This record gives sequence, C-alpha cells and structure tokens, in this order.
Amino acid sequence: MPRSAPAFTFAKSIATVSLSGTLPEKLEAAAAVGFDGVEIFENDLLTFDGSPADVRRIAEGLGLAITIFQPFRDFEAMPDPIRARNLDRAERKFDVMQALGTDLVLVCSNVQPHAIDDPARAAADLAEMAERAHRRGLRVGYEALAWGRHVNRWRQAWDIVNRADHPALGLIVDSFHTLSLGDDFSGLADVPGERIFFAQLADAPKLSMDVLSWSRHFRNFPGQGQLPVTEFLTAVLASGYRGPLSLEVFNDEFRSAPARLTALDGLRSLIHVEAEAGHGPGLPEPPVCDGVEFLEFAVDAAAHDKLAGLLGTLGFRHAGRHRSKAVDLYRQGGVNLVLNSEEDSAASEHFQMHGPSVCAMAFRVDDSRRAIARAEALRCVLWRERVGEGERHIPALRAPDGTLIHLVENDAAGRSIWEDDFHLLPDDGAASPAALTGIDHVAQALPFGRMDGFVLFYRAVFGFVPETLWELPDPYGLIRSRALVSPNAEPGRGVRLPLNISESRRTATGRFVGATAGAGVHHIAFASRDAGALVEERLAAGAPFLAIPANYYDDLAVKHPLDDDALAALKRRELLYDRDDHGAFLHAYTDSFEDRFFFEVVERQGDYRQFGAVNAPVRMAVQAQLREDRWPTRYLDQRHPDQQ
Amino acid sequence: MPRSAPAFTFAKSIATVSLSGTLPEKLEAAAAVGFDGVEIFENDLLTFDGSPADVRRIAEGLGLAITIFQPFRDFEAMPDPIRARNLDRAERKFDVMQALGTDLVLVCSNVQPHAIDDPARAAADLAEMAERAHRRGLRVGYEALAWGRHVNRWRQAWDIVNRADHPALGLIVDSFHTLSLGDDFSGLADVPGERIFFAQLADAPKLSMDVLSWSRHFRNFPGQGQLPVTEFLTAVLASGYRGPLSLEVFNDEFRSAPARLTALDGLRSLIHVEAEAGHGPGLPEPPVCDGVEFLEFAVDAAAHDKLAGLLGTLGFRHAGRHRSKAVDLYRQGGVNLVLNSEEDSAASEHFQMHGPSVCAMAFRVDDSRRAIARAEALRCVLWRERVGEGERHIPALRAPDGTLIHLVENDAAGRSIWEDDFHLLPDDGAASPAALTGIDHVAQALPFGRMDGFVLFYRAVFGFVPETLWELPDPYGLIRSRALVSPNAEPGRGVRLPLNISESRRTATGRFVGATAGAGVHHIAFASRDAGALVEERLAAGAPFLAIPANYYDDLAVKHPLDDDALAALKRRELLYDRDDHGAFLHAYTDSFEDRFFFEVVERQGDYRQFGAVNAPVRMAVQAQLREDRWPTRYLDQRHPDQQ
Repeated sequence: MPRSAPAFTFAKSIATVSLSGTLPEKLEAAAAVGFDGVEIFENDLLTFDGSPADVRRIAEGLGLAITIFQPFRDFEAMPDPIRARNLDRAERKFDVMQALGTDLVLVCSNVQPHAIDDPARAAADLAEMAERAHRRGLRVGYEALAWGRHVNRWRQAWDIVNRADHPALGLIVDSFHTLSLGDDFSGLADVPGERIFFAQLADAPKLSMDVLSWSRHFRNFPGQGQLPVTEFLTAVLASGYRGPLSLEVFNDEFRSAPARLTALDGLRSLIHVEAEAGHGPGLPEPPVCDGVEFLEFAVDAAAHDKLAGLLGTLGFRHAGRHRSKAVDLYRQGGVNLVLNSEEDSAASEHFQMHGPSVCAMAFRVDDSRRAIARAEALRCVLWRERVGEGERHIPALRAPDGTLIHLVENDAAGRSIWEDDFHLLPDDGAASPAALTGIDHVAQALPFGRMDGFVLFYRAVFGFVPETLWELPDPYGLIRSRALVSPNAEPGRGVRLPLNISESRRTATGRFVGATAGAGVHHIAFASRDAGALVEERLAAGAPFLAIPANYYDDLAVKHPLDDDALAALKRRELLYDRDDHGAFLHAYTDSFEDRFFFEVVERQGDYRQFGAVNAPVRMAVQAQLREDRWPTRYLDQRHPDQQ
Repeated sequence: MPRSAPAFTFAKSIATVSLSGTLPEKLEAAAAVGFDGVEIFENDLLTFDGSPADVRRIAEGLGLAITIFQPFRDFEAMPDPIRARNLDRAERKFDVMQALGTDLVLVCSNVQPHAIDDPARAAADLAEMAERAHRRGLRVGYEALAWGRHVNRWRQAWDIVNRADHPALGLIVDSFHTLSLGDDFSGLADVPGERIFFAQLADAPKLSMDVLSWSRHFRNFPGQGQLPVTEFLTAVLASGYRGPLSLEVFNDEFRSAPARLTALDGLRSLIHVEAEAGHGPGLPEPPVCDGVEFLEFAVDAAAHDKLAGLLGTLGFRHAGRHRSKAVDLYRQGGVNLVLNSEEDSAASEHFQMHGPSVCAMAFRVDDSRRAIARAEALRCVLWRERVGEGERHIPALRAPDGTLIHLVENDAAGRSIWEDDFHLLPDDGAASPAALTGIDHVAQALPFGRMDGFVLFYRAVFGFVPETLWELPDPYGLIRSRALVSPNAEPGRGVRLPLNISESRRTATGRFVGATAGAGVHHIAFASRDAGALVEERLAAGAPFLAIPANYYDDLAVKHPLDDDALAALKRRELLYDRDDHGAFLHAYTDSFEDRFFFEVVERQGDYRQFGAVNAPVRMAVQAQLREDRWPTRYLDQRHPDQQ
C-alpha cells in the first residue's frame, strides 16, 4: 500500500548530456516525459545555433526550468596570472547564465597538474567567485570530481565551502563521484541541507577500470547499475536538502538512443529512487508474482497450424477456444499458451509488424490493482483490451518494447480467466505423468543499448532482482545475458526473465532483433519434474529437440562425476547438464520456429537457481549449424566482406 | 629492398577462438587465406557435431595442421583427490588429441583458489602428466596465465618446466600474458629454443582495466594494438625457437566479423611481425608517401554536374578530360580531383553500389614497384586497370573496403600522369593567390568492428603510424577516431588518414556506412596557406561553408587569448580554431554532399599536427541540425522507439 505521501516532492531534472540529439531535441524530450528542469551542459550550448536567450525561451515554452549551468572547470587554486584570467572567465560565464536565466553554476574540482594543493587558497578563490556571482544574484556550487587533482572527496569540497563561508557558495554532491571511490557518504546527513546547492544522481555497473573512463562511458540511471544510489540519496535527503534531484549521465549507449526513450527511463529511475529513499509521494508495493500464467502468440492461420503442430509434438493439447475471438488455448500441466489469430486486433497488428511472435505475457499477481497503480506512478503505458460480454477485464501494461504484460489474479470466487473467457474442451485425462508443470523462464532478446532500460523497468515496476551478467559466445558474436528474477522465485514458483543482448547482428539474438524490428520473447523454458522421461516421450512423438554433439558428453564425463549409465541416459535424451553447489539442472532445447523463437524443457534439482548458461554455447552452435545447413551465411560473407 | 631471405619461414597458425562461425567455417577461413595450421580451442570442438577424427579429416582436406589442442585448465598443484582425477582427465583429453592428430596440449597455469603454492609440486604433477603423454607420443606445454593463482609470469612457468625436467614437457609463451603485466621478456632469449614448445601472439590496446576482462574482450592481432609484440617475438626467436607462430585472440568484434576477413588480417599481421622481428623472407621497405596525388569520385552524369558545381564554388576549375574515358579533372593549386562517370567501368560499378563517393585515392610514392611488392607479400589484393594506348599504367591495390589506392610516381622524364592520360585545358592563370596547396587529410568512415583491420593495413603496407584515439560526440552517438599518418608528415607533405567508427547508426558516420554499404571516404580536407582569405573569397562565390554558432566564438574568447579583431575575423569567415604547444589550426567545413561526404579547408600554423578534434562536435552538431531541418529524425524516433 502507498506510504502516506509527504507534502514535498523533489523537482526532477536531467543534464542535457544524458540525452541524444540537438539541444532543442534534448529539451523537447525532457519536457515531453515530464521533467521539471534541465542542466545545460556547456558543450550543448556551444554547438547550438541560437543565443542563450533563445535557449531560455525554448525551455520556458516547454515548461522547463534551467536548474544549473555546468561545468566550469579548473578554476580554483591556480597560480597567478591564471587566477585573474579565471575570474574574468567566470564573469563571461555569468553573462551566459543570466541570459539563460539560471542562477547556479557548477564548479568541479581542478584537475590541472599545476593546481596548488592548498584548501585555503581554493576557498579564497571560490569565495571571490561567489562574491562576484552574488553581486549579480547568482550562486556557485562546488563539486569534488572523483579524479580531481587535489580535491576528489565530497568532504574535502565541503571543507573548502565551509572555509570560504560565503552565502552564494554551496556544495554540490554527485552519487557517482562519491560511490565510484567507495567513499563514505553517511556524513552527508550532517551537512546543513541549505548548504547543499544541488544533487546529481548517477548509477553505474561495477567495472574494474580507471574512474575517468568508467565515468565517461558507463554511467547509467539510478537502479540500472550496482552502486548504492538509494543509500546515498537517503543520506543527502537526511541533510534537509530540498533542491532538484538531477540526473547527470555520460553513457555511450544513451548518446545514440532515441532521446525520449532515455528521458522516460530517467524519469522512472528518479521517481523510483526517490521512493526507495523514503521520500516523494511513495509508491504502492510491487506485486508478488507467483508465475507466468500464460504466453500469447500473434499468428496468422498458417503460423497457427504450424505452431500448433509443434506444440502437439511437445505434448500440448488444444484445450479451448475464446468465447468471442479467434484465440485458442493450448495447455499442458500448468502451462497455458494462447495462439491469437484474430483479425484486426492488437495481435494481428503485432503479427504484421513482427511475424509469428509472443505478443503478450501474463503474470499471476497477488493484487493487480495495486500493481497497475505502481506501474502508472512509474510512468508505464497501461493498456485496456476490448472485452466481450461476461468476459474478464485483465489489466495490462506495456513493457518497454511494446509487449503486453497482463496481470492475472483469480477472482474472489476462485474462477480463473479461462473459465470466464474460454469455451474449455474436456481434458481426456490422458496427460503424460511426465507433463510440464509450468513456465520456468521466458528469455527476451533486446535491441543493442536497451539492457539498462529493461532492467530498470522490471526492477522498478515489479521489484525483480537483476542477477549476474553472463557473456555467452554464439558462433557469430558474444551475447550478454542478465536475468531478472522475482524475489520469491524457487523451483516451481516465481518469474524469471533472462534478457539477452547481441552487439552483432549475425547471432541468432541479433537476427531476431533485426527480423522482428525490436525486442521480444526469444525462448520459452518449460519446467518439468522429470525432463528425461518427458524428452524421451516427446522425441518419440517427433518433437524437434536439438541433437547434442557427442563431444559434449565426452567432456561432461570429464567435468562431472557422472556414472556411465547417467551419462548414457543424458546422451540418449539430448539433455544438457549443469550443477552448482545447490543442485543440478537438466535441459533440452528445440530447434527454432522460423528463426524466431524456440522452446526448452528444464528440470531443476535441489536448489539450482541458474539457467545452464555454461551450456548455452552448445545450443547456439547447434542451432547455428542447423541454420547454416539451410542458409549458408559464409556465401554472404564472401560477397560483402565488410558488411555485418 | 628485400633483406636477404633466411632459409626458414615460421609456420603460421591461428586459434579457432579467434574466428567467428561454426568449426568448419573457422577451418575453411583459416585455410582459404593461407594459414598452415590451427589451434583447436576446446569449446569449438565440444559444440561441433562430429567426432575429433572428423575434425582431423576436415583439417587434412584443407591442408591445415592441428598445431595444438587447448586449453587444459587447473591441472597442476591440486590437493588429493583432485590430483588423481586431473590425471584421469588428462588421459581422456590425450584420447581426443590422438583422434585429432595433434601431439601437443596447452596446460595453462592453475587459477583455482585451492591450488597449492608449491613449484615443486607443480613440477612433479606436470612431469607425471608429461610422462603419460610421452608414452603415447604426445607432448605437454605449460603456459603462465597472467591471472594464474600462483604462477603468472613466464619465468615461473619456465622454472617449473625446468624442475620437472621431462623431454615431453616444454614452455609455452604468449605475448599477451607477458606484456599485459609489463613483465620483462628479455630473458626468453636465453631459454633453449627447443624447450619452447609453442609461441602464441596477441596484441592489445592499452586499457586500464583488470587483466582478465582485457584479455577476454580486447586482444587483437600484432600491429593492431599498442603492446611491444615485435620486441617480444624478437626475444623468443633469439632463443632458437622454430615452432609455429600462432595467433590466439579473444576479441568481441572478431567474434562477429566475417571469418575470412579476420583470418586475412591475422595472416597479414603474422607476416608483418615476423619481418619486423627480423625473420622470415623479409619484406620490401614501405613506400615513402609524399602526399595524396588525387582523389577519384564515382559519379553519374547528374552527380557529376552537381559536384562540379560545388567544386566551382570552392575555386576548382575544369582542368582536363581523360584521353579515352568519361573522366574529368578538376584542379586547384596542388589538388587534383577526378570525376569518373565512365559507363561500364569499375567506377560505375562503385557508383551503383555506393552512390556518389570516392572510389579511388592516389598516393605519390618514391617507388611504386617496391610498394606493390610489399603489398603483395602482405596478401593485399592488387588491381590492374585497362589502359588506353599511350596511357600510363598506374599500379594499384585495394584497401580492405575495396577502395582503390593508386601509387603514382613521376616518370623518369618528369612527366606527370596528367600529361600522359589527359587532354589538359590551358590554365588561364587567374587562380586566386589564396588557392589550395594540397590535400591535408582524407577521413574515412569504417563499419563497426573494422578499425583494427584498417589500422593494420595502413601500418603494415604503408608504414603509417597510428595516432591517439579520440572520442568525438556526434549529437546521435560517439565517434571513435584514430589517424594513420605517414612518418614524414609535416605541413604540406605526407599522407594523413583519420579513420572514424560509429557504434550508432544514427550519427552521420553511421549513416554513411549504412547508406554506402561499407566503408569509404567521408571527408576531404584541403590545405591552404591562408584559410581566412580563401574562405572569405569562396563564401562570396557561394561555397556552402557551415555557419558556426555565435556561442562557439564567445567561448573561444574565454579559452584562448585572441584579441577582438582576430575573433571577429574568425567569426566572419566561419573558421574554427585550435592551438596546442606547437602551433595553431584554422579550419572551415562545408555542408555534406547528399549526406555522403563533405569538404574542409585547413591552415596549419607552426607545427600543429592534430586535426582540430576539439571542434569536431561543433561541426557534427551544425551538420546534424541542417539535416534535421531537412529530415526531422525525431519523428522517426517516436514511431519506433526501440529501433535505432
């Protein structure tokens, strides 16, 4: 339930450097998604063919405040005559600020080798600058850069601000500069809030590289990375700070992504981190997701028949027909797959754009109304389907790639959506004892550059937890894979969503993204209590499980203490094997359906929580070879050697 | 001239992990470009649906030796009972080796936390393994991984091999593992050559990150990176080593690049590094390149007229017509531009594929015959044009993108190619005193992933030197730029080729690569002794120089000590400005020609050797805005938010 809302909500701001495009495009994007203000990054002004006053007018017209002008570099503690020149330089930039209509400039700590290591001198210089600013009604904020020559910690910057003791001089804090050094931030709570002039927020993945490269290329929005930004913000807010929360992110991928998409991710991250830090209007708790209730495929009649045939070999039966639409239910044990060939529907639109593909997922949740309220507060796009008489309304929202996510709960009387909406066919009770028990995981292929946005979406809206990043070699390029998992996940319960990205367009993941013009479900793993029995039964029924190379089993025998019988059983059933300290994992993959998606059958033994990533290269190589046999890529390679 | 050729040439080998594709594709690619052997990387075998004997047969059929099987990990100095299990594991892999038909296995130093820190124990284990190998006629090579738990330097590995004192156990050296740690390699010369069983070579860019990530993602071929691989190899060869030279490269970009292209780069790098290390058949010296003699544009009649019009505004005059082809010469001062609209020619083919674009460059060289001999030895594709009666044959080779590079020298009588091949029109002598003096640099846009290949090509074939890598923010993504410069370059002399890569397809560079289906010349910079006068004169003639934002000049005044008159002069002439410790740089850019290429006028003052990279973002923003005015990308962004 929502926490009681505090009276105060922080203004949300974003630095123009965080967004791609020309300066007007950046401003438009920030305004369009609902930011209150922008930081004007100086380079964006220098390359803009209009005056600072023009920028002010555009921003005002869009309802954006200019929260700060930044950065002013290498100012303090310089030897004469640079000191005098720097004060002149400041006056010229004060002119710009006044034309822009902002009263605050960010001075970042000096990185020059000839800067003097003397906090008193730095304080005196900043006091002089602040005094000059003050005469014009302007203010100066001082920030410690993580790679500053002599000042790189917030406490040093605060000490200098304190010494300078000028009302127009305050501290600027930045989560990246503090957290990247692993610096202690708890003391920020003790700084008088009104002495903090500005708070910049950025997250980042943990990378072992020099901090400048890390900062310039890999920052991302709070909740997208691995730094304790929430804890940092909690300390800052405890000081009594009431200025804007502003995103300043340098990220190679954001530079090339459409600006509105990035801006929306950014605003979502700020709303989320503000709530996590215990401020803002608060957010409803995330839903408890018990599992994936169904997956819906957009098909036409031909694809329907072909996919239904494949599902038949996997042991699914035709279990029902929708009361009012050309929508069929295929079912096995706890798995519901819906094939939607309704014309003139959202599904048919999806089919036309993406071909046969998953157009919707449904999660079983404890409280769909609360989940929708949270999603709405986090600026998700909600969706309302046309509903026939007597049919259930299933609330839904759109994932960042447009895939629908339905939120299903049994109604008070315990009736399922299937009973409400479908003519169910009687089960002949002949289901195999080895039948599937549910959907173990659903893997999605994402366009290059969109991992951060999807991680934030699932983390913020559903409370899913991002797991370790894996790098998986496809024969035609590296795949980066990170699973988002519901916190309650255990064998047979919860939602697991591996997200996969390929830099190359030659991998299966890359081709999928190219062919479907976007992201989408790339593979679906079904849970089984006895994968061996199931796969054996299904192979006999003609299911297209991949034939696993004998070399794999020879090596498996070397790696794991498996006896000959166990090994022979795995080999006969085309099962891959993994184990960790918690348990074991058996799994088999099918060939892909029209080079789009494929299925997997998995069996989790003990408390194994991974996804058999170690075996993914085998799967990818076998699938690539099958495709190669059908469509030899090497001939393409020879024709246009430089195209990929 | 070629050095006297030693009798011995090293066998050239490449690890399968260095190439993309399925195992058969990798083998085919290695054989196709002329490698003698391959290292079989175990994962490539495990994912291959055929037996080790099948691999042997395929390799034999292709004329490839299997030089080594690798890696065998975490073997030595393990506590019992792992020790016994590891010896069993070794026996299983010996079976595989015998089926593969290779006698050598690579054991890399143990990375396990429970490995015992005891060289004597490691030596005993390796001696036992070597003895077992020996019984089967096999050999074991031991290599220090840079991140080995206890053994990470070659000298430690050599000490262990020495202690073990078994004829079937030798040392394996790897340039990356030694050079990445900055380890001293001079002592390798003192190891008895026959005790080194195998030499692996890899280069890498200098990056400040953990060595494991660096190794797994960023290695490249010798000459593509910044490590002293030549010096390392010189020391190895001084030992008397006579085994294969083998490339083992883990590189994300190579994983997705067409395998033959990568393999060709690899073989070229080995031939080059072998010669640099003073062995092998030797290579003719690289040419001395004095400058760019001409650039040739592939056009049709319409593009000819439009481009000729643009060149007219820039002060070029129509200076001649080819004696036998629809090829026109436009000339100004020392700059020759050739517009080729000949039907049914290489140029017309180029035009059909790439649109109006540069299809050939010509370098002025001291000895074209020697240069061609070197290029041929380095496996370049040579090219021979059909030549009319009395016309000069100009030798040429193809750059990795297919662009022709002609090599021009004046003939003994001092006649230029122009007098031989063209009907030259009389010069009316009215050329401006401000006329261009030559071609300062030619910038090329490369497809993503091809920087290393191009750097190696220009470095190996022409002896050009790679300069610092720049990162330039285009409004729609980051551009990485590295110039290759002839060692004799000075103002007015030499060849300078900035190479640009965009990860994003939304930047001008990325769009260029997309639109032209490959790499090519993206901008051409003309040298001038008085850029100010020239641009002023040409603006009056209607030349489409970019209008530079006033904000740029306001900031320039803050950054550089320019007086008001100098600043006003720059501003009036749309000139950008840079200076460094050696001199200053004035330059102006034109708008792009059909979103393909554009021109620049530059003036180098003093000994300024850069390219005004600091101003590139201004140029890119102004060009982007001009294009935006014609074709607003933001509407595209909104339609398909996830496509880039």
